[in-house]
Amino acid sequence: MSDSFVLGMTAIAAGIAALGCIGGGLGTGKATAKAVESVSRQPEATDKILKVLIAGGALSEATAIYALLVALMLIFVGVH
Amino acid sequence: MSDSFVLGMTAIAAGIAALGCIGGGLGTGKATAKAVESVSRQPEATDKILKVLIAGGALSEATAIYALLVALMLIFVGVH
Amino acid sequence: MSDSFVLGMTAIAAGIAALGCIGGGLGTGKATAKAVESVSRQPEATDKILKVLIAGGALSEATAIYALLVALMLIFVGVH
Amino acid sequence: MSDSFVLGMTAIAAGIAALGCIGGGLGTGKATAKAVESVSRQPEATDKILKVLIAGGALSEATAIYALLVALMLIFVGVH
Amino acid sequence: MSDSFVLGMTAIAAGIAALGCIGGGLGTGKATAKAVESVSRQPEATDKILKVLIAGGALSEATAIYALLVALMLIFVGVH
Repeated sequence: MSDSFVLGMTAIAAGIAALGCIGGGLGTGKATAKAVESVSRQPEATDKILKVLIAGGALSEATAIYALLVALMLIFVGVH
Repeated sequence: MSDSFVLGMTAIAAGIAALGCIGGGLGTGKATAKAVESVSRQPEATDKILKVLIAGGALSEATAIYALLVALMLIFVGVH
Repeated sequence: MSDSFVLGMTAIAAGIAALGCIGGGLGTGKATAKAVESVSRQPEATDKILKVLIAGGALSEATAIYALLVALMLIFVGVH
Repeated sequence: MSDSFVLGMTAIAAGIAALGCIGGGLGTGKATAKAVESVSRQPEATDKILKVLIAGGALSEATAIYALLVALMLIFVGVH
Repeated sequence: MSDSFVLGMTAIAAGIAALGCIGGGLGTGKATAKAVESVSRQPEATDKILKVLIAGGALSEATAIYALLVALMLIFVGVH
């Protein structure tokens, strides 16, 4: 892959793909907000709340990693 | 598929497709938020809540995987 | 279908189509959130809640699959 | 990588990638907001709230770091 | 880096990158708003509220600094 137009477009594509991280950031942020609020109401349930937060937060976080993966592949592999 | 314009456009398409992960990220984030809030109200129902969260969260997560799939196919298969 | 402009536009179209998954992700995520909240209030109704969640979640999920289908057809069949 | 068009497009791509930081900023900001609100309700639970905030905030923060990583690689490595 | 097209595109990229500060600004703003509201309800908990605000606000603020960093590097280092 050596054509300059393809390289330029691929660079932009990687930049656009990185925006896919926004959903994961907002999602885990909202989940954390609710977890913090819940702990203040039920401090004795901190361990259970943290367990559920990690389980669900991993799913939300994964969507950001998918976007990262696409961006990285565009940079290092490109289209072919 | 060797035309540079096609390759460039395909790269952008993969980047746009990656944005499709946003919905899954926000969706599972919101689901996790409610799960966390619910566990704080009914700690003894943690296992049941977690079961429902995984069941519904998998559906939400799947939509992000669909977008990932489209992006990957655009990169490795392309249009033809 | 061999014109490079058509191929390039088709690739972008497939990427845009993938964004259609966002609605399904948000919809099923919200449905799951309410299901989780409901289970915490009525743990003994878990089975009924789960049944309704699957029925309604399938409808919401279907919209993401429609978008996936359009993207796949653009990639493998193209316009003609 | 020396073609001017590629360099220009890569620069724009790095700029777009930086926008991916927005999600992490909003997410950790919302989490902090709820933590602060919670501490005011349950001052004696400050340590627990802070522990949960750091755990969840790291996940949200990570999404901004992913976007930063993509931007940095576009600038220092470029596409190839 | 002396090509005028590259310089022009890099300038635009720095401007776009600066928009990444929006998230941090909104996030820390929301956090501060809740902190102020909380202190008014629990004046005696001011020190604890301030501690949590600084801890979480630093995470949110960092995302704006990431965007600033990208913008500065585009201006002073450029792509290469």
